[in-house]
Amino acid sequence: MYPSKPKIVKDPYTKLFALARNFAILSSTEQIIGWDQETYMPSGAITIRSLQLEQLASLVHKQKTSPAFAKALGKLIDLSTGEILANNLSSRQISAVKEWRRDYLKMVKLPASFVRTFSKVTSTAIHTWARAKTENNFRAFAPHLEKIVTLSRKKAEILGYHDHPYDALLDLYEPEMTSGYLTPLFARLKTSLAQLLKEISTRPQIRQDFLHQHFPKDKQIEFSHLVLRAMGFDEKTSRLDLSNHPFCSGVHPTDTRMTTRIDINYPMSNILSAIHEGGHGLYNMQRNPEEFGSPLGEPISLSIDESQSRWWETRIGRTLSFWRHFFPLMQKSFPEQLQSVTLEDFHRAINIVEPTFIRTESDEVTYSLHIIVRFEIEKALIDGTLKVKEVPDAWNAKMQEYLGITPKTFAEGCLQDIHWSMGGIGYFPTYTLGNLYAAQFFQAFEREYANWEERVSKGELGFIRDWLRMNIHQYGKEFSAAETVMRISGTPLSEKPFVDYLRNKYTRLYQLA
Amino acid sequence: MYPSKPKIVKDPYTKLFALARNFAILSSTEQIIGWDQETYMPSGAITIRSLQLEQLASLVHKQKTSPAFAKALGKLIDLSTGEILANNLSSRQISAVKEWRRDYLKMVKLPASFVRTFSKVTSTAIHTWARAKTENNFRAFAPHLEKIVTLSRKKAEILGYHDHPYDALLDLYEPEMTSGYLTPLFARLKTSLAQLLKEISTRPQIRQDFLHQHFPKDKQIEFSHLVLRAMGFDEKTSRLDLSNHPFCSGVHPTDTRMTTRIDINYPMSNILSAIHEGGHGLYNMQRNPEEFGSPLGEPISLSIDESQSRWWETRIGRTLSFWRHFFPLMQKSFPEQLQSVTLEDFHRAINIVEPTFIRTESDEVTYSLHIIVRFEIEKALIDGTLKVKEVPDAWNAKMQEYLGITPKTFAEGCLQDIHWSMGGIGYFPTYTLGNLYAAQFFQAFEREYANWEERVSKGELGFIRDWLRMNIHQYGKEFSAAETVMRISGTPLSEKPFVDYLRNKYTRLYQLA
Repeated sequence: MYPSKPKIVKDPYTKLFALARNFAILSSTEQIIGWDQETYMPSGAITIRSLQLEQLASLVHKQKTSPAFAKALGKLIDLSTGEILANNLSSRQISAVKEWRRDYLKMVKLPASFVRTFSKVTSTAIHTWARAKTENNFRAFAPHLEKIVTLSRKKAEILGYHDHPYDALLDLYEPEMTSGYLTPLFARLKTSLAQLLKEISTRPQIRQDFLHQHFPKDKQIEFSHLVLRAMGFDEKTSRLDLSNHPFCSGVHPTDTRMTTRIDINYPMSNILSAIHEGGHGLYNMQRNPEEFGSPLGEPISLSIDESQSRWWETRIGRTLSFWRHFFPLMQKSFPEQLQSVTLEDFHRAINIVEPTFIRTESDEVTYSLHIIVRFEIEKALIDGTLKVKEVPDAWNAKMQEYLGITPKTFAEGCLQDIHWSMGGIGYFPTYTLGNLYAAQFFQAFEREYANWEERVSKGELGFIRDWLRMNIHQYGKEFSAAETVMRISGTPLSEKPFVDYLRNKYTRLYQLA
Repeated sequence: MYPSKPKIVKDPYTKLFALARNFAILSSTEQIIGWDQETYMPSGAITIRSLQLEQLASLVHKQKTSPAFAKALGKLIDLSTGEILANNLSSRQISAVKEWRRDYLKMVKLPASFVRTFSKVTSTAIHTWARAKTENNFRAFAPHLEKIVTLSRKKAEILGYHDHPYDALLDLYEPEMTSGYLTPLFARLKTSLAQLLKEISTRPQIRQDFLHQHFPKDKQIEFSHLVLRAMGFDEKTSRLDLSNHPFCSGVHPTDTRMTTRIDINYPMSNILSAIHEGGHGLYNMQRNPEEFGSPLGEPISLSIDESQSRWWETRIGRTLSFWRHFFPLMQKSFPEQLQSVTLEDFHRAINIVEPTFIRTESDEVTYSLHIIVRFEIEKALIDGTLKVKEVPDAWNAKMQEYLGITPKTFAEGCLQDIHWSMGGIGYFPTYTLGNLYAAQFFQAFEREYANWEERVSKGELGFIRDWLRMNIHQYGKEFSAAETVMRISGTPLSEKPFVDYLRNKYTRLYQLA
């Protein structure tokens, strides 16, 4: 009836890639639907939305575990041993094929019905969590968390692990990371941060009263758009919207959807969230569009993704150089609030170290202590040494022990994060790992651009974006996280660059001995 | 690994319905993605969006034509003869099964690859159309329209028809309607409208200068929300956004997404669009959620759907009674612009009859003449008596002949509507049919509620919404359009109630003899 395309005999790699691209298209649809749920969906549509997401997850799972995909993949790599079977693959293609196999093996272990159930449970849990947080009602959320913990434990059993069931979940977000590795790393980090926090707390506190004023919503939104434009975003391929918890949906390099949140009495919540999500956004925007659907077009891991957001938020967005350019613009947007504030006072104020309840608004020194609270709690939930109903007490006790403060509400305590409601147990450690990777990458960047502060002071950010694209974004998953940090810094991942950076920065800011 | 549900032996109807509900869920996802494309999608994402929509259309098609569905359907109805095979079905269920068969037979005729191609072509065409309209560039859009006409002709051949290939396309939107029936109906209507227009044009024109002032965007949006709330919408299950061309996506009874457009120099464009889309929205919101996925939960046809939007826009939203309540509120929103305007002058101004270029902003008398222009052109495109490149000339000639005016730009001429770019050839006649159905339904409504004007004057709209639910919305496709108009009015569809209504209304407004 209509012209049929000429048949082209495709090589096995191209065939495999074409199949995988189909999954990626469906996953990108799923991302839009998920984004819509958090931004514009009428709340009453949650039931049909759960069904929509459940169906999409099931369709993606079905495609990724289809015999056709296994057959196509099996022509290139031995599915059981991992031996490469095709002899004409480039090293990039070999990396891709290995990643496809890793993903496939994980997928086939999880039955479609399990994936469906998990997706349905979490879709409802997210909504309940949002209400429970507003109403400060942990009991309303507890049965949902209970279900999620039970399903996550089952997930760990299905996926398998060597030492600790938590490792199976961690591996989903940070391939090859284990709690055995993480526990001592976090212990060393905890000691160093506690020591630094102790020294800081002996010093006079920085004033930041001028940040706690009325900053109108529209002006705030306008300002975050201004910063994102400077980072390299435009409205043709990106969006910034509002949601309960800021996030970035990397739908496709041509469709980056970031969200922020507005506190009209504290502008830094919005600005630093926008810069943070912008860091994720650039990683999405700068991946190779030709590789869409292949591991070579995907972020290495959540930690590396987080290294990008924390890089922009902390290593750029909290520096004196950055604000040398942007503070005058911010003063222009908020003259009444900021005209009498000096750049130096502003810079100090946005870097204040002070134990707070909310992770996303915490400073760089205490941030990782927040993560360690969550890591310890979720690890204990998974190995059964902690019950869901004990979470609020455990949370508060750890907050008191590590940060010296006790939340008064669930909303500023264990209900503050969306992650558990999304089923993301094992996710939190990637935040701190992101900071460690960012610090180690930044040392290499500084060696190359000794004058970076001078350029940033002029509002130049493009050279940083380019450095990240050249060194990280363009490769997709060609190299693992461990390989990437070796390639860029010459040494394996360590907490030292991060601790050194913090000590150096805060010695100056708080005039430590 | 986790508890399996107890096996329940389902009856064949329930089984069929469960399958169909799955398709409906996927289609509702497709609607969100389509809505996003017209509202929030960054323009640069159009390529990946085309792939997403193409894939979803293909998946829906695959499900709807699957052997599993055919088998389940075949247990209830003979697919070739239409004979009902199950003897325990209610009359409602029999209607549903017949509709499922009709839909299925249409679907299996269209190969999946055709559906995919069609969806891909139109997705790109929509975007090109939007730009071509802005840039007043018919040539940029022509090759896309060419492709759409060619594909539509092929579609007609594949689907089959008796007399005219156009009938196959018309039947997709208005089941059982033919150009053989439509041509004389439209001819009678054209004569009556031309006569009425002639009489009106001899009378002094109504003043409406006060509507052509600056009406701020935010206030306009606020006011359309106010009207939609009075119609029965709330933010828990509906949205109103902005788009190039207003539309309503009835995703699910719990998720009604309407759009409007703002002309800051003419508020009625927004207000009447919002009321119009609100009419579609109520049909969506008031369908039976239990029947989601069954024909019993779907609108009868596009004409009946349009009868609902035109009912609210013209039979309610342009009446003196309606504005008796809402005009004081509008004056409150726009005191500077409207405080010196009387209700009667306002009512006359929003009912002015005057040939205009833009269909969606045209009055009730000339509206159908706009439709007849499109009907004649698309019929001719399909039977090959008109070429795509001749469309602008044909359009302008007909506009001159029927309305006495000639568009000066493509944007106010043949590029004004989104429909052709969406592949919707055969769709336009349903607009005028909607007006005819609305007029015939309204006569029955008036018999039941002789005091409707008094109640509407007080801002009461709920009883109208209820009447529509009871008489139309609740049934889904249990009755056909022809059956519905007989059931409600007692007579078959005729242009007479519509013509009588217009003559009566405009005799008073223009003081005709």
